[in-house]
Amino acid sequence: MSPSNPGTNSSWGGRFSEPTDAFVERFTASVDFDQRLALHDIQGSIAHATMLARVDVLSDVERDAIIEGLGEIRGEIERGEFAWSIALEDVHMNIEARLTDKIGTTGKKLHTGRSRNDQVATDIRLFLRDEIDDIAIELVRLREGLITLAEREADTIMPGFTHLQTAQPVTFGHHLLAWQEMLARDHERLFDCRKRVNVLPLGAAALAGTTYPIDRHVTAELLGFERPAENSLDAVSDRDFAIEFTAFASILLMHLSRMSEELVLWTSAQFDFIDLPDRFCTGSSIMPQKKNPDVPELVRGKTGRVYGHLMSLLTLMKSQPLAYNKDNQEDKEPLFDTLETVKGCLRAFADMAPAIESKKARMAEAARRGFSTATDLADYLVRRGVAFRDAHEIVGQSVAFGLRENKDLSEMRLEELQQFSETIGADVFEVLTLEGSVAARNHIGGTAPDQVRAAAQRARDALASLAGQA
Amino acid sequence: MSPSNPGTNSSWGGRFSEPTDAFVERFTASVDFDQRLALHDIQGSIAHATMLARVDVLSDVERDAIIEGLGEIRGEIERGEFAWSIALEDVHMNIEARLTDKIGTTGKKLHTGRSRNDQVATDIRLFLRDEIDDIAIELVRLREGLITLAEREADTIMPGFTHLQTAQPVTFGHHLLAWQEMLARDHERLFDCRKRVNVLPLGAAALAGTTYPIDRHVTAELLGFERPAENSLDAVSDRDFAIEFTAFASILLMHLSRMSEELVLWTSAQFDFIDLPDRFCTGSSIMPQKKNPDVPELVRGKTGRVYGHLMSLLTLMKSQPLAYNKDNQEDKEPLFDTLETVKGCLRAFADMAPAIESKKARMAEAARRGFSTATDLADYLVRRGVAFRDAHEIVGQSVAFGLRENKDLSEMRLEELQQFSETIGADVFEVLTLEGSVAARNHIGGTAPDQVRAAAQRARDALASLAGQA
Amino acid sequence: MSPSNPGTNSSWGGRFSEPTDAFVERFTASVDFDQRLALHDIQGSIAHATMLARVDVLSDVERDAIIEGLGEIRGEIERGEFAWSIALEDVHMNIEARLTDKIGTTGKKLHTGRSRNDQVATDIRLFLRDEIDDIAIELVRLREGLITLAEREADTIMPGFTHLQTAQPVTFGHHLLAWQEMLARDHERLFDCRKRVNVLPLGAAALAGTTYPIDRHVTAELLGFERPAENSLDAVSDRDFAIEFTAFASILLMHLSRMSEELVLWTSAQFDFIDLPDRFCTGSSIMPQKKNPDVPELVRGKTGRVYGHLMSLLTLMKSQPLAYNKDNQEDKEPLFDTLETVKGCLRAFADMAPAIESKKARMAEAARRGFSTATDLADYLVRRGVAFRDAHEIVGQSVAFGLRENKDLSEMRLEELQQFSETIGADVFEVLTLEGSVAARNHIGGTAPDQVRAAAQRARDALASLAGQA
Amino acid sequence: MSPSNPGTNSSWGGRFSEPTDAFVERFTASVDFDQRLALHDIQGSIAHATMLARVDVLSDVERDAIIEGLGEIRGEIERGEFAWSIALEDVHMNIEARLTDKIGTTGKKLHTGRSRNDQVATDIRLFLRDEIDDIAIELVRLREGLITLAEREADTIMPGFTHLQTAQPVTFGHHLLAWQEMLARDHERLFDCRKRVNVLPLGAAALAGTTYPIDRHVTAELLGFERPAENSLDAVSDRDFAIEFTAFASILLMHLSRMSEELVLWTSAQFDFIDLPDRFCTGSSIMPQKKNPDVPELVRGKTGRVYGHLMSLLTLMKSQPLAYNKDNQEDKEPLFDTLETVKGCLRAFADMAPAIESKKARMAEAARRGFSTATDLADYLVRRGVAFRDAHEIVGQSVAFGLRENKDLSEMRLEELQQFSETIGADVFEVLTLEGSVAARNHIGGTAPDQVRAAAQRARDALASLAGQA
Repeated sequence: MSPSNPGTNSSWGGRFSEPTDAFVERFTASVDFDQRLALHDIQGSIAHATMLARVDVLSDVERDAIIEGLGEIRGEIERGEFAWSIALEDVHMNIEARLTDKIGTTGKKLHTGRSRNDQVATDIRLFLRDEIDDIAIELVRLREGLITLAEREADTIMPGFTHLQTAQPVTFGHHLLAWQEMLARDHERLFDCRKRVNVLPLGAAALAGTTYPIDRHVTAELLGFERPAENSLDAVSDRDFAIEFTAFASILLMHLSRMSEELVLWTSAQFDFIDLPDRFCTGSSIMPQKKNPDVPELVRGKTGRVYGHLMSLLTLMKSQPLAYNKDNQEDKEPLFDTLETVKGCLRAFADMAPAIESKKARMAEAARRGFSTATDLADYLVRRGVAFRDAHEIVGQSVAFGLRENKDLSEMRLEELQQFSETIGADVFEVLTLEGSVAARNHIGGTAPDQVRAAAQRARDALASLAGQA
Repeated sequence: MSPSNPGTNSSWGGRFSEPTDAFVERFTASVDFDQRLALHDIQGSIAHATMLARVDVLSDVERDAIIEGLGEIRGEIERGEFAWSIALEDVHMNIEARLTDKIGTTGKKLHTGRSRNDQVATDIRLFLRDEIDDIAIELVRLREGLITLAEREADTIMPGFTHLQTAQPVTFGHHLLAWQEMLARDHERLFDCRKRVNVLPLGAAALAGTTYPIDRHVTAELLGFERPAENSLDAVSDRDFAIEFTAFASILLMHLSRMSEELVLWTSAQFDFIDLPDRFCTGSSIMPQKKNPDVPELVRGKTGRVYGHLMSLLTLMKSQPLAYNKDNQEDKEPLFDTLETVKGCLRAFADMAPAIESKKARMAEAARRGFSTATDLADYLVRRGVAFRDAHEIVGQSVAFGLRENKDLSEMRLEELQQFSETIGADVFEVLTLEGSVAARNHIGGTAPDQVRAAAQRARDALASLAGQA
Repeated sequence: MSPSNPGTNSSWGGRFSEPTDAFVERFTASVDFDQRLALHDIQGSIAHATMLARVDVLSDVERDAIIEGLGEIRGEIERGEFAWSIALEDVHMNIEARLTDKIGTTGKKLHTGRSRNDQVATDIRLFLRDEIDDIAIELVRLREGLITLAEREADTIMPGFTHLQTAQPVTFGHHLLAWQEMLARDHERLFDCRKRVNVLPLGAAALAGTTYPIDRHVTAELLGFERPAENSLDAVSDRDFAIEFTAFASILLMHLSRMSEELVLWTSAQFDFIDLPDRFCTGSSIMPQKKNPDVPELVRGKTGRVYGHLMSLLTLMKSQPLAYNKDNQEDKEPLFDTLETVKGCLRAFADMAPAIESKKARMAEAARRGFSTATDLADYLVRRGVAFRDAHEIVGQSVAFGLRENKDLSEMRLEELQQFSETIGADVFEVLTLEGSVAARNHIGGTAPDQVRAAAQRARDALASLAGQA
Repeated sequence: MSPSNPGTNSSWGGRFSEPTDAFVERFTASVDFDQRLALHDIQGSIAHATMLARVDVLSDVERDAIIEGLGEIRGEIERGEFAWSIALEDVHMNIEARLTDKIGTTGKKLHTGRSRNDQVATDIRLFLRDEIDDIAIELVRLREGLITLAEREADTIMPGFTHLQTAQPVTFGHHLLAWQEMLARDHERLFDCRKRVNVLPLGAAALAGTTYPIDRHVTAELLGFERPAENSLDAVSDRDFAIEFTAFASILLMHLSRMSEELVLWTSAQFDFIDLPDRFCTGSSIMPQKKNPDVPELVRGKTGRVYGHLMSLLTLMKSQPLAYNKDNQEDKEPLFDTLETVKGCLRAFADMAPAIESKKARMAEAARRGFSTATDLADYLVRRGVAFRDAHEIVGQSVAFGLRENKDLSEMRLEELQQFSETIGADVFEVLTLEGSVAARNHIGGTAPDQVRAAAQRARDALASLAGQA
């Protein structure tokens, strides 16, 4: 760079009369984080060059030189030999500069008919599409693990809670399928998001399209995109896909936080419903007896991280006039970190879920406590003609009596029960067992073991059908 | 209610030994805001009663009494005659208590086989589904307005901006279609969300299903739901639909905030690109000359409101163990306010958009300033064999010269241009016109007037197809 | 309003050629929610009129007429007789119009030297300052309740948890003082916020100050503000105080959510550490045995609400150019709702805290389980010269043995303990008791009962000193 | 590590029967990011060892060995020679393991009387306190730059905007002081936050305090903390300081986003009010004429980043039961990134602010357009006895006339003005000049040049007094 021509090391120096401030250069550079897009940048450039040759903007010789040069650069990057330069601002200029080093002036022709604005939008979409597909694989693995575990635990009885108070007995398999249902919705949302990711911005150039006779359908086909984006201004400024993905991730992490909360509760000495293998736990540097459920705790903590990234991206895009603004450089780190977090958390859960061991005796004992079959008694009364609200009142009084006398409903004598309603007969004790209670909830969506097994089979079918669709 | 039996005025008093604290009663009551669900609560109850009679849990006579009673209550509510009571906690107990007033003990049977947990989840989904359909109508209206305006303005030239700096000339119609594309994605997301709203929780009862021989497929069909929810624990604790809707709304408002920002800029004295009719503006109490673009400003401000509700709901659900917890009562107000906000903002925009008047002379003059055809000069050089990066440098130097001499590119003499490249010929002035510049970006997604007209037609077709799908 | 002069019903019609659209009028009006500021608006207006008379812009007669008129209007508002009109947009115009009705043309002079921009900023600050003082009263009440309870429970032993796993025995009083410390920081933050609320915007007029010879020090003094705001542009556009207050509220609610979580855990059948009186709980419409800790659950749920409002206000202000924009109308509802929420939650907790009843036997039994004195054994070894990390390893092996043999440390025989370290002597059993364990943590901040009593006294003193400062 | 004794490489292995899963080890390790705390960890450890020797838990020889060893490790870290190990989980274990390598068994004694829970809380506070002091330095530099610039521009007239519509003339210096006021509040909030950071958690040990005879006042004094934290459970679980700091940072970034928005507007071709030197701008890879205000755009974009971190931390802490949970490991990255962002943005602004060059002629011309002195005309009428609301109406009609005739108020003939009010005399034209308008707003907080100069002096004094206080 000569003093009379400052800034020519970068892609835009001609108009400028002084070089960029050194701190500003560092502050505005993105290459530290956007180099993660390098392989997808090359993939996009190869398709772009191929299309340019197809429409005779490049010769076949030029195209081949470009593709070969990019192939070599890909190798350098994969082998960790590529020398990234902050002075070259971003991943795009780093690769293009290296290409020109390698193949001379032809390298400069690669940028014909495109701009960094449409190029980066294309790179992120290619990258995100691949990541989505990786995430779907982990989702399938976790869902399958839960379904299998649910089948194994279809008959295991535990207390069902509302307000964290014992409510009614449920089966553990039923509870696990509730988790599975949450993930099934996440899976659908992920695929809905993928549809909107899979659209080609390239060809929008800086903002208005280009004067070269490009064929965007060719580029779209080469890159596996469903179609070219309809509007160039929108194509370079749209970051909906990043927000929509992060919204998907926020709901997913919310679900994982709920599962984590339950795992933490269940491994506490107070609940003691399950065992997590040591390999998913850690200890304490000061308290030698501790075995901490670190993995679910950490996943629960990571929920905030992803919510934060969603808020970050929404704030970023608020009130931005069209088309591209430098603000958008801030779209990458939240997205990248969300992807890492989602993959890590899903992998941890997919590894851990099949290793959950239920402590059946503890669960059953807990279900027996706490008047969990009170609703069954009320239903018994209703079947004998008592209006539901009256039955509720009768059982409420029985429970108040039980609390005073420290007796569960099934432990009361018939006469004790009858002081609250003469309708109660000796057959009442059948409905007050845990097994009777869960088996009686025998309709689609209910907790009866047979329903759990049928639901697991339907879940398996739905999963196969969704995964096949991708 | 006798003094010895506190709390029997509510639905759960029997087990309790002291009445609810008066402040606590108010603090925990939801009837002030959930009465908005009243008509959908009745709709759900009628379907539930119909199903209960179908499976012989209610007699036909009981069913008819319930349905007639509920019909009368609906009338009372619609006429504003219904007396809501905080002591009855929520919309469900208010309506049920009134029903029992009207038809006696049969009214108490309505709650057979359900709980408030599945009832409220059903009510919200019915309500939200209707609101989504209303929102879709406004979205269609706004999108149509923009497409029509875009067609009218297909030839109007304005400066396109990146970094809010003049970049290249674009057509105003093209810019309007960029807005339209944002909304098209929102529309798709709304319909994707609707699929997941349209699932029946009823039958989940409190958390585990019910011992009554209910037929959830019947209820689902009566209420127009696609299918019953697969898992009772999930059905009562799932609030994904509210979060997903609020995420849709956040992205939509983000889009409206961008359009608003541009409307505010364009009506400023400095831009002065458009006129908004007085009826969408307000004035100042102190500055008599002011005409403020209040509607876009207010819509822009409402973005925060909706983002906040999204964050509120995500926080609400974080770490909640299954199944229902009282926390979930907090799901309604953010959702209701988001719905009101979305409907109001869309309506305001749908009313306002067709009334936007472009100031074509001002727009064209602004486009002529700022070297907006510099890229066209670079492309001209490339077509004459100069590598793109070199052409960029040549034009950069021409612009620097223009800044010093205070001359736009089209105002320079040929010799002036040629001092930077001898490749430049007299035909260069053709590509430096605004009309030539926009017409040359003539590919799908480009800003050329013909492309704008074609894109408008495709948008119209896509809109018709999507709207038909609902 | 004559047809040739549309819009003169409002404060700014002269320049306009068509009236506001009816929907737009409703959409942009704020009187539905800003009428909450009415009494503070009148308070501000009285001070403004007094100042105007002091500097001879108003005559004393005019001032007296205005003050008397405003006094009457205050009465009408307090008695619920005031007729609010949406056509008059906001609280300010409603009151001013009524004043002119009452006292004629003099009423119109009240707006001299001010604008709605500085007026509304003043109103909110006056309002918020009063609300902060109300909140401080509830905070004092809650902190006092916790301190008193902590003193009562200074000797009650419970398990201390990390990772929700039994860690070491602590005293319940110590745990309650941890809550108190959180609130002490909140209290400080509230007062720090109040300092920045207590500054006078009035006199900034629309944005630039006024040409009238106002004396802002007089107005500040009349309204109890510490000083006039230094810069008129900042004064009308600053909403930091609302954000800072909402940030205070978010941290406070976060604290209450943690206390709520613990109350929910402790009232579960599994923990069963405390009793909450029936009057703070509610039941279930379907499960007659349920007693749900609704108040803490609801408070926990309200956390999201306040976080959402914080995010809403931050988003609102992002990227707003100076000075006032209509966006800012959206500042009120989040602030108002945050205030209501904070007051309600604090009141609920202040009422509930003293009513918490510990179940000492259950707590002690839980503390005895789970090797909670393992650290004490390690410390014992260290005092006998074993390096801490080695002692940790020895105790870890003892615990592993105990898990296999189902024995707590205090239940092992000396020889059993000695197989892991010969350093262990018969005196080890003294340090393995709960009482010995807690008493040994006898330094400032430690859990020893004497430390708890001393800390409670210091907390009481600090509270008195802070409350006195307000 | 022998196969029969898995996990002894870490600080807690004794109790465990299988080693940590390799992925879990990586997933739960924090050393990748918490190594940033290394020097503060050593600082804290040196103070801890010094205190332990003071109370005779360590001998002086042991203390000296520890301090010397830590000093060497500090050197290794500073020289980049330290070998960090993921198997050792975190910064604390890495340093302690290295210490034991160096000085043998004495190294293991350093952890006596503390836990990683209080250790990490101490490290973060020490680290954050230093960062706060660095940030204060940049804040001072930026505030000084703005004050100096404001003094230079005290007489420069520009249009003041509300609703981005021309409102009244203001001075550019006044506008710059509005920015300065925002930052003055941020500065105060930063110092209020620092008070609450500057409290010592060490001594809380794992959660309950320790059985060693520690003296926390000594440690507090050695580390420059104001006092020991009052409650051990609170001390290890409190992360308020991180949230409060991030809330400070969010408001600061909000302010910078507003300044950035204005810089972006002012450098647009449409406004063209200022010049930013080339060294703070970048260009376009495709549009050779572009000079983009990248620095303010990027800072505006970073607002979302910081808002996101605030939301992340608030979500993290929601509903966490006491005391420490693994979730809290997630507190560091948002805090670290917020600190980097704040420092970078402040530095960029502090460098850039003094380099802003106003284009006085453009500003004045813009102020002359748009009826900016309409309020002055109204005030003129009021001074002649017209009620303000009537004067407003008269001026509104004059403006409507001006719009039709395309004449500013100062361009109308006297008779033209008099058609709206006969009160208007020939002296009206004095108040319609820009200079007259700004000079007339001559009270504290007003835009008159003399007021700007006085306000700048007060700001300088306040800054000196605050900075002295730190």
